[in-house]
Amino acid sequence: MRPATPRVYGLWEIGRRTLELFGVSLEQTLGPAPQTVWYEDLEVGDRFVSTAGISVSEADIIDFARRFDPQPRHIDPVAAKDSLLAGLVASGWHTAAITMRLLLQVGLPIGDGLIGAGARLDWPTPTRPGDELFLELVVTSKRLSRGKPDRGVITVEYDTRNQRGELRQHTRLSLVALRRPDPSV
Amino acid sequence: MRPATPRVYGLWEIGRRTLELFGVSLEQTLGPAPQTVWYEDLEVGDRFVSTAGISVSEADIIDFARRFDPQPRHIDPVAAKDSLLAGLVASGWHTAAITMRLLLQVGLPIGDGLIGAGARLDWPTPTRPGDELFLELVVTSKRLSRGKPDRGVITVEYDTRNQRGELRQHTRLSLVALRRPDPSV
Repeated sequence: MRPATPRVYGLWEIGRRTLELFGVSLEQTLGPAPQTVWYEDLEVGDRFVSTAGISVSEADIIDFARRFDPQPRHIDPVAAKDSLLAGLVASGWHTAAITMRLLLQVGLPIGDGLIGAGARLDWPTPTRPGDELFLELVVTSKRLSRGKPDRGVITVEYDTRNQRGELRQHTRLSLVALRRPDPSV
Repeated sequence: MRPATPRVYGLWEIGRRTLELFGVSLEQTLGPAPQTVWYEDLEVGDRFVSTAGISVSEADIIDFARRFDPQPRHIDPVAAKDSLLAGLVASGWHTAAITMRLLLQVGLPIGDGLIGAGARLDWPTPTRPGDELFLELVVTSKRLSRGKPDRGVITVEYDTRNQRGELRQHTRLSLVALRRPDPSV
């Protein structure tokens, strides 16, 4: 039976950190986290929140942008000062990559059997040096595949915000999820 | 006057590489590439193609994923062999970052005055080690802002394909573009 109110996750992370204080890893205690995630494991309304943030420095922003998005506004603090965005800002693709890292930390069961198929990103404001980014996620829809009876599509939506609550990215992600195999077959 | 057929770019890159063979940089010859891009600089139907690809190795895939998406399918070639995707594959966010790098190489005039506001990504197949990725882009729409008379929104769509033409990512990107200032004002 499912709880009446949406579940709030992040406890796995809290537990892991608490145990770390005593020099014990969660994996030693409970065994490895579950690796296979099925279509049945996520329900509309399930919520996940990050309990630890990821800090973004000017050096992080420049390092990522040198590899993938070497525009002056992302790599040159002096030139960026006079740009439309008034200061060095992270590439939106850097915010997207950090958001993926946060997604693995919120306790959303991600593993084999769950594959990103597409995403819609909005960047209302750019990530800036000194931001600490957090994630809040909700499962917004799920439906079975019409063509392939062994799988479905789950949609999750999440906000990437900094320590002041400023929205840096909103994401809608479609995940292909396998159905749990029928043990009677 | 605009040409009757859509423009095909990439010549800047060809020119740069040709000059490099003789030890001369394009910037020495022509001065820096234009930095400010206006709403008026792009028209629906304009096409841009990459003339040089970006190769993706297993080490590249693992390095990116260790930072941003450390799932077994992206960092562990042995575990990945038995996964749904049958072998190590790049994080979709890595494909997105490489695609940004390609976007800066196709000759699309990107610079100050042009800011990514949102994107829609589809990953029909994942990037794999040994892929060399190329980009083909078309400007699909443009409209003036209703609220802010100094700017508009330009939409571009592009395909990221490997050397065998396999589609790794389709992107629809919305760009906020400033209008060229009126010199008579």
